[in-house]
Amino acid sequence: MASSVETRADADSDQGEDVTAHVTHLGQQARRAAAGLREATTGDKNTALHAMAAQLEQQREILRTANERDLEQAQQDGLSAALLDRLTLDDRRIDAMIAGLETVAALPDPVGEIDELSTRPNGLQIGRMRVPLGVIGIIYESRPNVTIDAAALCLKSGNAAILRGGSEAVHSNAAIAECIRLGLAEAGLPEACVQRVGTRDRQAVGALIRMDQYVDVIIPRGGRSLIERISADATVPVIKHLEGICHVYVDRHADLNQAWEVAFNAKCYRYGICGAMETLLVDESIAADFLPEMARRLMEAGVELRGCDRTRQLIAAEIAEESDWSTEYLAPILSIRVVEGLQAAIEHINHYGSHHTDAIVSQHLGHTRRFMAAVDSSSVMVNAATCFADGGEYGLGAEIGISTNRLHVRGPVGLQGLTTQKYIVIGDGHVRH
Amino acid sequence: MASSVETRADADSDQGEDVTAHVTHLGQQARRAAAGLREATTGDKNTALHAMAAQLEQQREILRTANERDLEQAQQDGLSAALLDRLTLDDRRIDAMIAGLETVAALPDPVGEIDELSTRPNGLQIGRMRVPLGVIGIIYESRPNVTIDAAALCLKSGNAAILRGGSEAVHSNAAIAECIRLGLAEAGLPEACVQRVGTRDRQAVGALIRMDQYVDVIIPRGGRSLIERISADATVPVIKHLEGICHVYVDRHADLNQAWEVAFNAKCYRYGICGAMETLLVDESIAADFLPEMARRLMEAGVELRGCDRTRQLIAAEIAEESDWSTEYLAPILSIRVVEGLQAAIEHINHYGSHHTDAIVSQHLGHTRRFMAAVDSSSVMVNAATCFADGGEYGLGAEIGISTNRLHVRGPVGLQGLTTQKYIVIGDGHVRH
Repeated sequence: MASSVETRADADSDQGEDVTAHVTHLGQQARRAAAGLREATTGDKNTALHAMAAQLEQQREILRTANERDLEQAQQDGLSAALLDRLTLDDRRIDAMIAGLETVAALPDPVGEIDELSTRPNGLQIGRMRVPLGVIGIIYESRPNVTIDAAALCLKSGNAAILRGGSEAVHSNAAIAECIRLGLAEAGLPEACVQRVGTRDRQAVGALIRMDQYVDVIIPRGGRSLIERISADATVPVIKHLEGICHVYVDRHADLNQAWEVAFNAKCYRYGICGAMETLLVDESIAADFLPEMARRLMEAGVELRGCDRTRQLIAAEIAEESDWSTEYLAPILSIRVVEGLQAAIEHINHYGSHHTDAIVSQHLGHTRRFMAAVDSSSVMVNAATCFADGGEYGLGAEIGISTNRLHVRGPVGLQGLTTQKYIVIGDGHVRH
Repeated sequence: MASSVETRADADSDQGEDVTAHVTHLGQQARRAAAGLREATTGDKNTALHAMAAQLEQQREILRTANERDLEQAQQDGLSAALLDRLTLDDRRIDAMIAGLETVAALPDPVGEIDELSTRPNGLQIGRMRVPLGVIGIIYESRPNVTIDAAALCLKSGNAAILRGGSEAVHSNAAIAECIRLGLAEAGLPEACVQRVGTRDRQAVGALIRMDQYVDVIIPRGGRSLIERISADATVPVIKHLEGICHVYVDRHADLNQAWEVAFNAKCYRYGICGAMETLLVDESIAADFLPEMARRLMEAGVELRGCDRTRQLIAAEIAEESDWSTEYLAPILSIRVVEGLQAAIEHINHYGSHHTDAIVSQHLGHTRRFMAAVDSSSVMVNAATCFADGGEYGLGAEIGISTNRLHVRGPVGLQGLTTQKYIVIGDGHVRH
């Protein structure tokens, strides 16, 4: 079986010339599969998810062998240690993929839910039924586990998926795709429910993101440059996950013990996540009480501080330049600004932030109500650390990313974000007068 | 006052060179106004809507004078009778605009609604708050009443609006915009909540639809060519209203009396609306009972019939060409096809239709359930005429169009379609472990 995986992946590079035809074919297959998936029962979909998990369990050896080929090539190509780590598929990560499939199988199926069904004066019943989006294209970089996570969420929400992983993970992705294929077959679902773009040619991405006829939405998962390139060129709608320039604002009515803990956690839980705090805003009236102890804790953890003039009168910090207020460090660096109060904090966040996740620490009900209404971000938090911005923490069970779009879905994208609603209208021979 | 309206509209043509600067300025103003509107109370917004209605009432004379100038010009330019009719602002239409404002004022305000607020095991409360989209650009053609309808819906949903009407209605739109301006002032809301593009230069549209920084969504209202042009060029997301190729499928379990009435109404209620039936599908097993009487009624109403071979064995009809199945006639023409049953009807609708509004006439519960799940349209109806596809009929109170998008909003777009949801997370000093 190992050799079949190799052949599958090696064949990828042979298709150069006919990239558009290949991607169009995938699109047509996906559109047909999506029509069947709209009517698949939750039971069928869960059977496929459990069967995929069983396949991963059985094929650990094959998965690791395929992954080793990718890792060898990546080392030859001189990829960084961080990229090599992301690419690695060890037993712990295979366990996580299996657990992920079981989690998604256990989630309630949003498809078919009917909301707001009510009866009009003429007796017509009108409501909205939750339905799949159709065909979803996922474009991602090195992590091979995205192959299984994306397939699981798309399948459970009734969507056909076309996956395009990074070329550095091609053998790992091919081996995982084989487990998916076998799982679908076991549940009697068409193979084309989850397809993998079978060429490393970059033109395939260009074709996929402009194939409006067959693809309903594109979800890129990767760095800013990938997402910006795709957004600029796509004609298919894109669910984007741009940067997180997240703020914690310490209000004059904050409980200072809470503020120290929340701000420290928001910065230091993990520096590299999109929900990490990048700027700390402090009300001028409590700055002298709050900042010295805050600075002590952060510096002890090795965080570099960059402050405004008023900050630097209270604590030792580098000078924050104008550009610091709009920088996502993803590193042990924090910019700090003393502000005149709630209004100034709101204005700073809406102006310099990225509308991702922002928090206020305050015990003043009116201030927290205002902050929640006025801050224009996908998540607004009160007395909680911004690093909670995560589908798992929000109870979505699993997420395919965090949307910084305004339309359709904002914040962590779970199963519901991969569906839409259509109107249903039920009458008894009703005609319009 | 009449002269101030004239000056305002006449000034429009002078700005040719600086179109991008003008539109950028509008965008910046709108972004600022939107920040204020996010926090405006329902009371303030309703005060503005009532004040606009009062202004329209007071300024009937000025509105008619401005409209006459547009009509004179349009006659000189040789516009068709249909376009002249759309352009006309008589007392009845002014009444309708006033009534529209009062209707929107009476609708519940969706902003601030909190859904699905629940408590996680760690005590964090997580929910979703409904919030405005931000800045909405509306691009429309001849009907001047769109100026007031769009302004009212955007304002009530807390969005700043940038309106770009047809050049043929420039004086009428300027006069209406003056009523809007005075209404906003009376409620103490910034004028920039509703702005009108002050140039007839076509480049203004190009600038508006690519101004991602200041505009969050574009809603074009007009013919297919306008909408396609805008969709192709826009980088801002577009809520599209493309064609309605609507079907009625008469199932073998239909009540034939209902089927005759529903199908007749779907075709003949009004030929020119997007919810008008364009293709009638009939199950083969009841075609001989159903079609002759159906044809008699339709031909009596002057509807031209075009049928498949099997249809033409039962009734007198022209030959339906392949292209008929994908044509939106918007005219007294109907294509008719005899199909093998439910599955064939679903496949025909999903293949040839436009995913707008489609109906089944049937008393068979299983067939209606399957039809509702499998037909991939923004509205799916059971025993009701497709011409019900309308925000008013659905109880939305008012609509800004019917979306044929899949993402964000599908079907009639009311206040809720002009909003989005953000996550709110409320804790007590919560940190992540």
